[in-house]
Amino acid sequence: MTLPSKVQIIDVGPRDGLQNEKQPVPAAIKIELVHKLQEAGLQEIEVTSFVSPKWVPQMGDNAQVMAGIARKAGVRYSVLTPNMKGFEAALPTRPDEIVVFGSASEAFSQKNINCSIAESIERFAPVVEAALAQGMAVRGAMSCTVGCPYEGDIAPEKVAYLASLMKEIGVQRVDVADTIGVGTPRKVQAAIEATLGYYDIAHISGHFHDTYGQALANTLAAMEVGVSNFQSSVAGLGGCPYAKGATGNVATEDVVYMLHGMDIETGIDLDKLVDAGQFISEHLGRKNQSRVAVALLNKRAG
Amino acid sequence: MTLPSKVQIIDVGPRDGLQNEKQPVPAAIKIELVHKLQEAGLQEIEVTSFVSPKWVPQMGDNAQVMAGIARKAGVRYSVLTPNMKGFEAALPTRPDEIVVFGSASEAFSQKNINCSIAESIERFAPVVEAALAQGMAVRGAMSCTVGCPYEGDIAPEKVAYLASLMKEIGVQRVDVADTIGVGTPRKVQAAIEATLGYYDIAHISGHFHDTYGQALANTLAAMEVGVSNFQSSVAGLGGCPYAKGATGNVATEDVVYMLHGMDIETGIDLDKLVDAGQFISEHLGRKNQSRVAVALLNKRAG
Repeated sequence: MTLPSKVQIIDVGPRDGLQNEKQPVPAAIKIELVHKLQEAGLQEIEVTSFVSPKWVPQMGDNAQVMAGIARKAGVRYSVLTPNMKGFEAALPTRPDEIVVFGSASEAFSQKNINCSIAESIERFAPVVEAALAQGMAVRGAMSCTVGCPYEGDIAPEKVAYLASLMKEIGVQRVDVADTIGVGTPRKVQAAIEATLGYYDIAHISGHFHDTYGQALANTLAAMEVGVSNFQSSVAGLGGCPYAKGATGNVATEDVVYMLHGMDIETGIDLDKLVDAGQFISEHLGRKNQSRVAVALLNKRAG
Repeated sequence: MTLPSKVQIIDVGPRDGLQNEKQPVPAAIKIELVHKLQEAGLQEIEVTSFVSPKWVPQMGDNAQVMAGIARKAGVRYSVLTPNMKGFEAALPTRPDEIVVFGSASEAFSQKNINCSIAESIERFAPVVEAALAQGMAVRGAMSCTVGCPYEGDIAPEKVAYLASLMKEIGVQRVDVADTIGVGTPRKVQAAIEATLGYYDIAHISGHFHDTYGQALANTLAAMEVGVSNFQSSVAGLGGCPYAKGATGNVATEDVVYMLHGMDIETGIDLDKLVDAGQFISEHLGRKNQSRVAVALLNKRAG
């Protein structure tokens, strides 16, 4: 196995994780979570989303959260900006990177954002242009790259098509996301390989949900084709709206444990990361979804 | 990736899974579980253990369970036999295979069975000899091959030593078990490679606990070095006595889902397997520990 010696992890918990919470989480708690994540060594954190509070009230405190973070040198703070209005609201909060998104599934695009894949990318074009003009980095989240709740299996050609559109509008790097967690190692590799037609391996990240428990096997498989960037969510924050009761994002703790066990550097302190995850799990009054966190906390308790 | 096109799974749920239950499970329920597993296509099932009911009262109904199974052609029924007394009790129940065991960790051997590794294997020698004379198959479960709750990391040399002792007394095939679930892909591969000095790859199986969520990644890594036999437990039955509240055996459903997603044959019907796991989880009044089962059951419920 030739695997990367270093891996970079983006924790998406504050945004992707907390955006599905029924009870909005206070801004102060979100800020403390970001502080704990950067203290644990995370070098990129997806903080919030600049969407209409009508649609996602959970992120209505976006500017407040961004303003409240005591930024740490070397850490990249990213935000989701679905349109120009969102981008303009995000701009004064000085994110290091903006995230745009698109689906590899036509049906998902229609149901989720009410337009075709091509239309959604067109709408993002001015956002990307404006961000690049401001010297910001631009990342593209590609959802449903393996499976879709409406279409079922997604062919790699559809992933390639989405990647080509992302490239066309100037998106610098892309996430290959298994949004509903149905992927298995070979399928995930095929989605990554399809993306390689448009993006260099260094600009592709893996984003795997753990709904079917496959995320770590998929992470290993992705590393085997050269991926060294991954997204995950501390304490496995974030349910999957398409699979009631199921887990969502793979827990950052579980990914870090595997990587460290393989002598792959992450720059992350696993103990501090477990503390961050337990902090937010306790706030939410919820069982920590990270198996590693549960095992290590049991061990600490003796 | 060169991977096996077929994989054989041994479900150890009825034995390894249920032996830690505080409330012993009635024999009729165990028998029904075995029936459901063979109906789902499992070709080997670890049914029970012939140990003193003083030590493991949960398996006190061993002969009754073995007698109650309506055996299916092509299915192998195995039982654990820790000594000659156990073997003699097991003999009339006609198991197809007996399982003996040993630890790669000297400290674990001492704490668990109160003797050294070498002594434990010596005690098994007559059991193995008697079983082979009866035409039964003999499998050796090698525990703590990656980590030990007392010694920490276990060096591959210790695994090789245990495998050499197993070979010496005539054990035909061995399980490389990560008993406390701390292993990660490279460590698991190292344990398997150490075993290869004494056993052909076709006679080595992987037995990974999911305490740290690593079991599927470890399964993938094991297949990459040629392993095509695995042990798992339906519904993830079986806690880990050394990590309170943590999960134990990897769920058979999760393994099968990954394999089928990779076009690797198992001969198992995943839907029927989910039914078997849900049957026993409901009997135990416990949340199903298989992520795949939870996701598929949610999907069924719509």
